[in-house]
Amino acid sequence: MISVEQARERILAGLRPTAAEIVPLASAWGRVCAAAMASRLTQPPRDVSAMDGYALRAADGTLGARLRVAGSAPAGHPWDGTLGAGEALRIFTGSIIPDGADAILLQEDATRDGDGVTVNEAVTAGRHIRRAGQDFATGDVLVPAGKRLGARDIGLIAAGNHPWVAVHRQPRVAILATGDEIALPGEPIPPGGIVSSNSHALAALVRAGGGDPVVLPVAPDDRDAIAAAADAAAGADILVTTGGASVGEHDLVQDALAARGMTLDFWKIAMRPGKPLMHGTLGGVPMLGLPGNPVSSLVTAILFLLPAIARLSGLPGAPPAVTHAGLGAALAANDHRADHLRARLEPGADGALVATAFERQDSAMLRLLTLADALILRPPHAPAAPAGATVPIIRLDTLGI
Amino acid sequence: MISVEQARERILAGLRPTAAEIVPLASAWGRVCAAAMASRLTQPPRDVSAMDGYALRAADGTLGARLRVAGSAPAGHPWDGTLGAGEALRIFTGSIIPDGADAILLQEDATRDGDGVTVNEAVTAGRHIRRAGQDFATGDVLVPAGKRLGARDIGLIAAGNHPWVAVHRQPRVAILATGDEIALPGEPIPPGGIVSSNSHALAALVRAGGGDPVVLPVAPDDRDAIAAAADAAAGADILVTTGGASVGEHDLVQDALAARGMTLDFWKIAMRPGKPLMHGTLGGVPMLGLPGNPVSSLVTAILFLLPAIARLSGLPGAPPAVTHAGLGAALAANDHRADHLRARLEPGADGALVATAFERQDSAMLRLLTLADALILRPPHAPAAPAGATVPIIRLDTLGI
Repeated sequence: MISVEQARERILAGLRPTAAEIVPLASAWGRVCAAAMASRLTQPPRDVSAMDGYALRAADGTLGARLRVAGSAPAGHPWDGTLGAGEALRIFTGSIIPDGADAILLQEDATRDGDGVTVNEAVTAGRHIRRAGQDFATGDVLVPAGKRLGARDIGLIAAGNHPWVAVHRQPRVAILATGDEIALPGEPIPPGGIVSSNSHALAALVRAGGGDPVVLPVAPDDRDAIAAAADAAAGADILVTTGGASVGEHDLVQDALAARGMTLDFWKIAMRPGKPLMHGTLGGVPMLGLPGNPVSSLVTAILFLLPAIARLSGLPGAPPAVTHAGLGAALAANDHRADHLRARLEPGADGALVATAFERQDSAMLRLLTLADALILRPPHAPAAPAGATVPIIRLDTLGI
Repeated sequence: MISVEQARERILAGLRPTAAEIVPLASAWGRVCAAAMASRLTQPPRDVSAMDGYALRAADGTLGARLRVAGSAPAGHPWDGTLGAGEALRIFTGSIIPDGADAILLQEDATRDGDGVTVNEAVTAGRHIRRAGQDFATGDVLVPAGKRLGARDIGLIAAGNHPWVAVHRQPRVAILATGDEIALPGEPIPPGGIVSSNSHALAALVRAGGGDPVVLPVAPDDRDAIAAAADAAAGADILVTTGGASVGEHDLVQDALAARGMTLDFWKIAMRPGKPLMHGTLGGVPMLGLPGNPVSSLVTAILFLLPAIARLSGLPGAPPAVTHAGLGAALAANDHRADHLRARLEPGADGALVATAFERQDSAMLRLLTLADALILRPPHAPAAPAGATVPIIRLDTLGI
C-alpha cells in the first residue's frame, strides 16, 4: 500500500494539459487560459479626467478667476483643440485632457454662467487626472497562461480588446460503472439491485472541476463486457471506473482490463474510506479505478480525480486546499491508514471554525456524506486528539461537490 | 444616500424566485432544487453485509466450527433460501443477508475447503451487517428545496431513483451598456472610445452566480436609443445597466427610462467605489443601474447583483459571505461612505489570513481589481485601524469572479 500523497504524485505525473482551443470571450468564463493574454491597447489611451468638471491650465485656476469655456468633451467625443490661457474645457469622467491643460476644476467647485466659469476652489496641477497607461499599456500581460478565468479576467481581456481567447480543452473524463446489480435512475431495479449513483455523482464532480464527463453504459460483471466498455474510453483524457477495484471473486475490472493490455501502476492506498484504488494506463489513456461504494468513490474522487482534472486543464494540479479547524469532539488515535472523517463545520465562540466528526463513518452512507461540510484529515498513526485541538480539513461546501 | 445594507434589502425585497422547470438529473448540477426530493426507495433495501465473507447463524460461528456452504450471493444475485443451522452462505459487500442468518464471518477469518468453511474467529451477532434503511428510507427527504445541487446531491437523488429534477429556471439577466464611447472587443475603437469590458465582465459574473446573461447591444448616449434598448429587457428577470446612473449632462439613463415609465426607488448609496447606483422597476422588470467605471461596476455587482441572482434562483439571497483577516498595514479612519478596499491575502506567521490593501484604490484600475484576493470592508466612520487589527473581508478568490 502506498500513501495518499505518493498516489496523487504518481497519478499526476502521468498527466499532461490538454491542447488549446479558441473560444469566444463570452464563452470563456471558468475555462483555463492557454496562452498569456497581452493587451492590444493602452488604458487609458491618453491622460483623462477622473471627475466631471473643467480642464484648464493650473496657473489659471486660482480662487475667483473667471475662464472662458472653449468647448465640451463628453466621453466618446474628444475635443481636438489646444487649450489656451484663460480657457477651460467642459469635461466628464473619462474625457481626454486636451493639449495645453494640466489641471481639473471639479464641477462642484465651479460656477458656470453662459460661456464663462468661475473658480471657487484653487486647483492643483495633475490632481484628478488619470495618466495614460495607468491601468495597463499595449503589450502588458493582462492574464497569464494557466489561470482559470473569473469574471474580472473576462472584463480585463475585453478591455485589452480581445474577442477570442485560447483556452485548454475541457478534459474528457470517461466514467464506467460496473456491476450486475446496477440500474439507471428511474429504471426498474433488479432483485438485490441498487441504483447507479456513483456515475452521476462523479459526472457532476467532473463538471465542478471544469471537465467534460462522458458517462458510459453500465458494464455487467463480465470480463468481455467490461473490456468492450473500456474500449469506448479511447479518445478520453482519463478513464474512471467505479467498483471492482479490489481483488475478489466478483471484482473483475482489474482482470478484464489487464487482459486488454492495461499497465497497472498501483491498486491499494493506505487510506479510509477507499483503500482499493487502481491506477494504470489502458491504450495510452490514464485510468483511475475508484472503489464501488458511494462514499469511498466520492472521497477518492475529491482527493485524486479533482487534482487530475486540474492538471489536465492546465492548472497546477495541486491537492484540494487544506485549511484548519478546531475539534468539536475528541478523536481516538488513528491506525496506519490516512482517515477522512465526514464532519460538520460550525463557527465557534471566537468565530473560528469548529469541526465535529459524525459519530457514524460507515462508507455506505451517502446521505451522511451529503450533510458533511468538511473532511477531517487524520494522517496515519495520528495520536488521539482532544476537543479543541487544531486539525487539517478539506472544506466540501465550496467545491461544488 | 442610503446604506449598503438598506440598498441590498430594498433590492431583494422586490425579487421573487423564478418558476420551476424539469431537467434531467445529468443536467442538474449547480442548479437550485425547486421541490424537496424524497426517496423512492429504502437503502439498503434489506439488511446487507458490509464485508466479504459468509453469512451464518451467530450460534454456529464459534471458534473452530465447520459449516456447510449452502450457496453464494454475489452483488446483484440474491440467494432466495432460508439459511439452516450449520450452514453458511458465501456473501460479498452489499449482499443481502438471507433469512435465518444474523452474523457475518469475515473472509479473512475463514478457511474454505470444498463446500465447507471453518471458523477461525468467533462471530458476533449483528456485526458487519448494514441494516435496511440505514442510509435512507422511502419518503425520506434527500435534498430540500432551495439547495444548490452539488455532486453529492446529484448522487443522492440518483440513489433515491429519480431521473428528473425540478429546479428553478436560471434567472435571465439582461445587461445594457450605454455610452457613445463604447466599442465591442475586437471592433474598431472610435477616437476617445474605450472597449466594452463591463458587459462582458458582468455576463461572466452572472454565470458565476448561476444566472443566464443576455447581453444587449450597446446603446449610444441618446434618450430614444436607451429607451428602445431597455424594451429588449421585457421577459428578463432583472435588467442591469452600466453607466449613466448619476445625474450629469451625459448621464441619460435615468431620464430615458423615467420617460419610459421607470419607477425609481433610489439612486445613491453611501459607498465607495460606486456611489451612483440606481434601483427601480421598468415595465414590471426590476432594474439595477450600476456605475460605468469597471471597478465600481464589478464591486457593486458583487454586493448587489450576486445576492439578487441568488434570490431569483430560489436561494436565500444572503449578502456575499463575510469572513475576517488581520490587517497587513494600518488603515486611516473612514469617512461617511462604506469603503471596499481592494486587497491581497496572504497567510501570516500563525497561518491566519493577512489582508493588505493595495496602495492605489483608483476605481478605474481594472487590472488591480483582478489582482485582488479580497475586499476589505470599511464601515462608515470606521476608526483608524493599526496593522494586525481584525477586519471583515469578502474573499474574491472563491466566487468565480
